[in-house]
Amino acid sequence: MPEAATVRATIGDSEFDRDTALTRREPGVPGVYDIDLSAGWTIISAVNGGYLLAVLGRALADALPHADPFTISAHYLTASQPGPAVVRTDIVRTGRTLSTGQASLFQYDDQGREVERIRVLASYGDLDSLPDDVRTTAKPPAIPPMEQCFGPEDGPAPVEGSSAITDRLMLRLDPSTLGWALGAPSGNGEMRAWFGLADGRDPDPLALLLAVDALPPTAFELGLSGWVPTVELTVHVRSRPAPGPLRVSISTRNLAGGFLEEDAEVWDSADRLVAQSRQLARVRLR
Amino acid sequence: MPEAATVRATIGDSEFDRDTALTRREPGVPGVYDIDLSAGWTIISAVNGGYLLAVLGRALADALPHADPFTISAHYLTASQPGPAVVRTDIVRTGRTLSTGQASLFQYDDQGREVERIRVLASYGDLDSLPDDVRTTAKPPAIPPMEQCFGPEDGPAPVEGSSAITDRLMLRLDPSTLGWALGAPSGNGEMRAWFGLADGRDPDPLALLLAVDALPPTAFELGLSGWVPTVELTVHVRSRPAPGPLRVSISTRNLAGGFLEEDAEVWDSADRLVAQSRQLARVRLR
Repeated sequence: MPEAATVRATIGDSEFDRDTALTRREPGVPGVYDIDLSAGWTIISAVNGGYLLAVLGRALADALPHADPFTISAHYLTASQPGPAVVRTDIVRTGRTLSTGQASLFQYDDQGREVERIRVLASYGDLDSLPDDVRTTAKPPAIPPMEQCFGPEDGPAPVEGSSAITDRLMLRLDPSTLGWALGAPSGNGEMRAWFGLADGRDPDPLALLLAVDALPPTAFELGLSGWVPTVELTVHVRSRPAPGPLRVSISTRNLAGGFLEEDAEVWDSADRLVAQSRQLARVRLR
Repeated sequence: MPEAATVRATIGDSEFDRDTALTRREPGVPGVYDIDLSAGWTIISAVNGGYLLAVLGRALADALPHADPFTISAHYLTASQPGPAVVRTDIVRTGRTLSTGQASLFQYDDQGREVERIRVLASYGDLDSLPDDVRTTAKPPAIPPMEQCFGPEDGPAPVEGSSAITDRLMLRLDPSTLGWALGAPSGNGEMRAWFGLADGRDPDPLALLLAVDALPPTAFELGLSGWVPTVELTVHVRSRPAPGPLRVSISTRNLAGGFLEEDAEVWDSADRLVAQSRQLARVRLR
C-alpha cells in the first residue's frame, strides 16, 4: 500500500499552506481527504469560515481536472471545531474550460459518527487561460495607506473577536470604518482593510477564499455587537492575484428580518479586482 | 398504489404555477419529481435559467420542512431543453429555523440516460417568522414610472433574445438602460425594469427566483451582443413580496477575462428589498 499522499501546497510552506494541507485517503477511496483542522484560525472558539472554505477549495482543486475556483458556494450547517475532519468530494461534471464539483466537510460526534459541517458546490477553471482584458471601470476602494490604518497591535481598539487568527493575519483596518471599536459605529454597513498573511506568504486563489471572510462584520458599524454566523458564502475568483497586500472592502445594504448580506471585493496590488463574494449571515442580537 | 401527487401551486393557477408544477414519483422514491419543462419560458431556444431555478426551488419547498428559499445557489451544467425532466432532491440538514437541501435537474439523452442540467444547494426557512425590522437605508432604484418605460410591444426597440418568455412576462425597461437597443449602449453595466407575470399573478418567493434572471444582460449596455450563459446564480430571498409589480435593478462592476458578474436587487411595491442575487456568467463574444 503506497504512502498516503499529501496534497502539496502550491506556494511554499507557510502557515496557511500547512494548515490547509489534506491527506488523500488512497487507495480505493478517491476524492476523500483527511485533515486536522488547525486551532490557529479560530475566532473566539469557532473555526473561521474562510479558512474552512480554503480547505474545501484545496480538496476540490485536487479532485477536479481544473485547479482554480471560479465560483464556489458554501452552505454552513454546523459549527466546526479544531481537530480531525474528513472532506468527501464528488465530481459533478468535467468540461474543457470548466469543471464542477461538490465537497462536504465532516467531523465526528461522541460516538465517532460523521456530522456534516459544510457543503460546497463549485465550478473550477484555469485562471491563467483567461484573456487579460478588463472592460469595466470599477475602482479600488478608497482606503488610506497601510501605515495610516490600524491593526490589533495598535490598541486601544478592542478588535472584538480577536483570537488565534489574529496572529496569522496582517489585517489593518481603515480608521473610517473603525467607529464601532471606539463605541461610535458610523451606521454605514462598510468595513475596509489591508489584508495579508502574517508570515508574508503571497496571495493565491485559495488565500482569496480566506480574505473575503476575515474582516470584522459590517454589523459592528451598524451598531450591533453580537455574533454573525454565516449561512451561505459564495466567492467568485476573477483573476490570479499579484504578489503583495490585498485591499478588502465589505458592504451591507440590507440588514433586515434578522439577516444581512455581506458583499466583499478584493483588489490586488496591481489594482485588479481579483475576487467578489457575497454571504448571507444571521444576526444574533445580544 | 396511490395516485401521483402534484405539488400544488401556492397561488392560483397561473401560467407560472402550472409550468413549475411537479409530480411526486411516489411511493418508494421520496424526493423525486417529474416535470415537463414548458417551451413557454425559452429565450431563443434555451430554457430561461430563472424559470429552471423556480422549478428546483419548488421541488425543495416540497421536500424540506421549510417552504421558503432563503439562499439558493445553482450551478448550470448543460443547457436545458423544453420537455421531460426529473428533479432529485436530497435533505442535507433540517434545523428549527433553517433547513438545507440539494437538488439536481436531469433530462434524457438519445439513449434515455439521465444528463444533469443543474445542481442546486439551498437553505430554506419561514419568511413569515422573521421580524419586520429593516435597519439599513438602501433605497429602491431610480426608475421612471411604468408608463414611461418600454416593453417589447413598444418597438422599434429590438429586444434581442425576445422569444416565448416575452409573452409570459410584464417587463418594462427603463429607457436610460435601453441604449443598446438603439445601437448606442451607455457603457454602464446597468439594466433596470418593472417586472411582473403577464397574467397578473402576484409575486411570491418562487417568482423572485425568476425575476432576478429575466432582464436583458447588462453586457448589452457594455457594448457586447453575444450570448451570456450563466455559470452560477445565487439568490437570497429576504422578504415575502407585497402584491403588485416589482422593480429589478441589475448591475455589473467587473467584466474581465471573459466573465462578468450580474448583481440583481428586487424591490416590491411596498419599497422593500425582497431579493438580492449574484450570478457569474460567461461572455461569448461574437
